[in-house]
Amino acid sequence: MSLNFESPEPLHIQLKKKLKEDILNGCYKNKIPSERTLMERYSVSRTTVRMSVSMLVNEGILQKSHGKGTFISNTPVQDWLGSFKSFTETVKSTGMNPGSKLIYQGKSSSPEKVGNILGLDQFYLIERLRFADDIPVAIEKHYYSVEIGEKLEKYDLNTVVIYDLLETTLGINLWKAKQSITSGKPLKQDAKYLEILESSSVLLSERIIYDPQGNPIEFLNSVFRPDMYSFNIEMMRAREN
Amino acid sequence: MSLNFESPEPLHIQLKKKLKEDILNGCYKNKIPSERTLMERYSVSRTTVRMSVSMLVNEGILQKSHGKGTFISNTPVQDWLGSFKSFTETVKSTGMNPGSKLIYQGKSSSPEKVGNILGLDQFYLIERLRFADDIPVAIEKHYYSVEIGEKLEKYDLNTVVIYDLLETTLGINLWKAKQSITSGKPLKQDAKYLEILESSSVLLSERIIYDPQGNPIEFLNSVFRPDMYSFNIEMMRAREN
Repeated sequence: MSLNFESPEPLHIQLKKKLKEDILNGCYKNKIPSERTLMERYSVSRTTVRMSVSMLVNEGILQKSHGKGTFISNTPVQDWLGSFKSFTETVKSTGMNPGSKLIYQGKSSSPEKVGNILGLDQFYLIERLRFADDIPVAIEKHYYSVEIGEKLEKYDLNTVVIYDLLETTLGINLWKAKQSITSGKPLKQDAKYLEILESSSVLLSERIIYDPQGNPIEFLNSVFRPDMYSFNIEMMRAREN
Repeated sequence: MSLNFESPEPLHIQLKKKLKEDILNGCYKNKIPSERTLMERYSVSRTTVRMSVSMLVNEGILQKSHGKGTFISNTPVQDWLGSFKSFTETVKSTGMNPGSKLIYQGKSSSPEKVGNILGLDQFYLIERLRFADDIPVAIEKHYYSVEIGEKLEKYDLNTVVIYDLLETTLGINLWKAKQSITSGKPLKQDAKYLEILESSSVLLSERIIYDPQGNPIEFLNSVFRPDMYSFNIEMMRAREN
């Protein structure tokens, strides 16, 4: 629980990491402990506590409410379900700045499940780390037919909005999506990219996009940081007839 | 990794628990290893492997596909978003049998967040463990005004469908809901109730239900086992105007 006073890493950075980990793991509900409590718990100065907290405020993980304390923010990125959007569109709609880093692109024939969904033995994978205001938020694995993949690979996948390319340049009609949301643990590699611990919980989503004829165009597998991303929806009550 | 051959607990029960934990933690994607691999990995007989696997098939966690192997099921309970439903309605719609066990009922004034949402200093909490075919699937914390809570406490909360009571007996119109979905770690107590490890990932949901005048009627906080429950939705593409 305590900080390492021998470490060359500044105490406010250590404390920031510790608080972030605790928030991510749901140790605090709604509010973090007071400055005084944190000072005593970690044997650090008020200045150190304030520096750590303001770094987390800057990252959007904490929110100050004057006179009331420091609250754990609703996730900065809120994905409002109802119509399906690209990650870029979702992040922009929260007023943040979307970014991408290409991790992998190329042909693949595993996992078998993707082949079953797309009805293909071989397919094309584009894997990207996604950012909101330079904070890593998600890893998206897009799977397409090799034909579509080979058209996409002519572009710089670090910068393009894939759905814009598909819809505008390639003239593919993205019509309907079926999405499933659950949770799990990150792969070692994914945890590293997302800057979270392997023992963290992550939000998982799978989505299939169909064209108007019902052909599957894309299978998308996403891993989200639960402190940064949530799914949201407004619904009416189901009425029985 | 290995089983305890000295333990009085039968090997097929130990193996079943081990496989379930690995599935829950996402160690296998889509498929579990072959019988032969499991026999060698755990130094057990084919019969032991088969017994463990069929227990997991019975629990709905695994699915056999002849000639193709044993697959990890889609979650048995699928909550189709679009209109909001009670847990009972959701579980029934999957063809499973819903159940409840009352954990707690009574007045409360924490967490503060609930008070802010309901606009009350004090409120009434009903906490229930929820089952699908006798498997623990979720913990639901329903928060109401004390007035509504005191009307509900006259009934046996181990058996009633709360939304039926609210809508039919109490004449409250459950109109619209706002729901937020993310993931996290279970509290120690919740992990015990859900029969999962504390280190597991859980799916989290918060929902506020409003009446037609826009008054908040219920705040619902739910924790779901991600091997048993998923949120699902069908959506059309967002079109810019």
